Amino acid sequence: MTKHIIVVGAVAGGATSASQIRRLDNESRITVYEKDGFMSFANCGLPYYLGNVVENRDNILSATPEKFKAKKDIDVKVKHEVLHIDDNNQTVTVKNHLTGETFVDHYDILVLSPGARASRLSFDVPHLFTLRNMEDTDQIDTYIRENNVQSVLIVGAGYVSLEMVENMHHRGLQPTLIHRSEAVNKLMDQDMNSVIFDALNQYNIPYRLNEEIQSINGHTVTFTSGAVEDYDMIIAGVGVRPNSEFIQSSGIQLDTKGYIPVNDKFETNIPNIYAVGDIVTNFYRHVDLPAHVPLAWGAHRGASVVAEQIGGNPEVKFKGYVGANIVKFFDYTLASTGISPQELKNFDYQMVEVNINTHAGYYPDNSKVHLRAYFDKKTRRILRATAVGQKDVDKRIDVLSMALMHQATIDELTEFEVAYAPPFAHPKDLINMLGYKARNL
Amino acid sequence: MTKHIIVVGAVAGGATSASQIRRLDNESRITVYEKDGFMSFANCGLPYYLGNVVENRDNILSATPEKFKAKKDIDVKVKHEVLHIDDNNQTVTVKNHLTGETFVDHYDILVLSPGARASRLSFDVPHLFTLRNMEDTDQIDTYIRENNVQSVLIVGAGYVSLEMVENMHHRGLQPTLIHRSEAVNKLMDQDMNSVIFDALNQYNIPYRLNEEIQSINGHTVTFTSGAVEDYDMIIAGVGVRPNSEFIQSSGIQLDTKGYIPVNDKFETNIPNIYAVGDIVTNFYRHVDLPAHVPLAWGAHRGASVVAEQIGGNPEVKFKGYVGANIVKFFDYTLASTGISPQELKNFDYQMVEVNINTHAGYYPDNSKVHLRAYFDKKTRRILRATAVGQKDVDKRIDVLSMALMHQATIDELTEFEVAYAPPFAHPKDLINMLGYKARNL
Repeated sequence: MTKHIIVVGAVAGGATSASQIRRLDNESRITVYEKDGFMSFANCGLPYYLGNVVENRDNILSATPEKFKAKKDIDVKVKHEVLHIDDNNQTVTVKNHLTGETFVDHYDILVLSPGARASRLSFDVPHLFTLRNMEDTDQIDTYIRENNVQSVLIVGAGYVSLEMVENMHHRGLQPTLIHRSEAVNKLMDQDMNSVIFDALNQYNIPYRLNEEIQSINGHTVTFTSGAVEDYDMIIAGVGVRPNSEFIQSSGIQLDTKGYIPVNDKFETNIPNIYAVGDIVTNFYRHVDLPAHVPLAWGAHRGASVVAEQIGGNPEVKFKGYVGANIVKFFDYTLASTGISPQELKNFDYQMVEVNINTHAGYYPDNSKVHLRAYFDKKTRRILRATAVGQKDVDKRIDVLSMALMHQATIDELTEFEVAYAPPFAHPKDLINMLGYKARNL
Repeated sequence: MTKHIIVVGAVAGGATSASQIRRLDNESRITVYEKDGFMSFANCGLPYYLGNVVENRDNILSATPEKFKAKKDIDVKVKHEVLHIDDNNQTVTVKNHLTGETFVDHYDILVLSPGARASRLSFDVPHLFTLRNMEDTDQIDTYIRENNVQSVLIVGAGYVSLEMVENMHHRGLQPTLIHRSEAVNKLMDQDMNSVIFDALNQYNIPYRLNEEIQSINGHTVTFTSGAVEDYDMIIAGVGVRPNSEFIQSSGIQLDTKGYIPVNDKFETNIPNIYAVGDIVTNFYRHVDLPAHVPLAWGAHRGASVVAEQIGGNPEVKFKGYVGANIVKFFDYTLASTGISPQELKNFDYQMVEVNINTHAGYYPDNSKVHLRAYFDKKTRRILRATAVGQKDVDKRIDVLSMALMHQATIDELTEFEVAYAPPFAHPKDLINMLGYKARNL
């Protein structure tokens, strides 16, 4: 009998898994159940579409169920929510939200990629939104157009909130940012986040830290600080929660936060059940610590490994995250790789940093890059690196991600052979200088 | 008695060696002999100064003998040419070109960094120049200013010639490029050099391949093709020769081309004599082949290793070149890392490539990067990588240099965790795609 592979979720992890499995397996029947109405949209592009940086909505919708069926013989069923997994009988219970019908489907292999959803603030007003999927995007866009929105309150200071501040400004609206603590953009060293406030000041965007909404009355917002202000629209980016409630009734193990621990094959604790994407936790590559890195690269890498496992190449395994991440905020780029600032406490570490021009001093169009690395005092292994600047931040962090992938020591950075010409770097580049500085400590 | 360290040459390798040695050694007397009139100028910046891209001449003169004496207690003697090394008695014979006097000086340790000089065409006309040092630069600049130069013939198509074409154009002159074969920019794959001709055409700069000067009569040049044209000035970039004639009378071993083979400590075959910079040949890091990489990074790295050797840290050794190099040509960047195209014949290799947008397709300001990697069929190790494009070429090659430094296989490129956000990369980046393509071959 033909094998049936069911994939739960049709965004980055799910759609890519289905697609990669088909590449290696022409025989099996593949069905993807997606509870929302769209598949394979570019989540990371949503703020830029709302900011009119990406002008054409079609450009962030990279696939449709019709195309997946025609090109790959994969059945993608949107508005189909998986309610329960019976891992003994290898079935899922699915609700078709288009018809209201509920049915049971049998799988031989199950791949879970249900992702996470935006946490919501507990206020019930029609102009309060979150931004996570295509439906959210369309609702925000429609609300802005139909209500002549001018002022937007952005709540929270993570990646999506920061991108929304920039994009609402780019669209010509007036954003205001509030955040409940002083710790913005938590993957970055807090002192290096100062460029965020520089940019906010430069573009005349009001912001307040240690500030929360106390109550909302019509368009009037009362804050915990006592401030009372009117906003046409509110967008909250206050964290995410795993979409794993439907898994609780199965034998699949969840961690205390509701995520699914997987091994180096992206296997759950139950045979024939894999998980990928934002829902999983696994491990770092360069240090011996668990890791939860809910970003796009990991979803794609997980999909590829699962496909190889299912497609008969069990030697292809996941070797762990280094934790690379990056965000553009107006003229600045902030990026890091390695363990988080919070995880540094597990190590006896030292820090080295440089803050100098990105290329030869005499060559024009220069700007400073603040580059920093943390390393273990005993093993000398690099634990974490961060960079902030207006140019070439991505380059330095990508090079250091490749270094972390190979468990490089801080001293080995002296040996990195940069491609040097005056417009691009220094003959003794910033990366090298981290190594030389560590030697001289 | 105080130890005396003599350094021959005061440009990148020599000046940096002296400076790095002093950092670790406060006791020794350090003397640097430089046959030309300037020290520590930025060779890689000379074309950009002549192109008025770098406006201030002082910006490419980073140090003076006075500063080196005051700050580092190092005696730099310019216009002092070393004529002979007596490695038995540990002396050098030096000619002071300022006074005409010749003298003998004793060393305990000798560091050779005499570099190379530009090969010259065998025509004796006053408007024919080469560009290698500060004197050349000043002569070219003066000639342009005093003779109202409009048309410039550039002979040769290596890095300096290409940069001079761009910079003469930037200065408002009319450059013409000729090259004696079809193989321009030899460190790059020839088919990827097509962007050079695209740029020449785009900026209306005439060029002819398989073309040489046959004779020069006043300002009239007769070419081997039969063409006869007038040029106000001619700049020849037709290769370099090692400045090692003065070494031939010593016991120091030279290779057949006149370069000095050194080991992983930059030691020559003679005790207490080191060599660094363009004059040395050593070895690759990622493959078992000799390497001659006469570029700025190697000069600085060599200087640092020599200083550690002399300064009492013998565990710091050179682990070899990966061969990273890069050049900007108008709107394009061409870069490579690894062995040269000519050296590939030593291996049974395969090639993979991608030629796609540098970041997420929907995000603006995109442009294509043509990225290519060669790997050994059996070991799967990456041998060489090249990239051409208008943006982010340096980033991809630097990441791959770090991979080569760790002897990465082509398959491991699937595991590279790129820092992804839409303005910077793809969740499955070009680097990853090289790995996936190799798997699918």
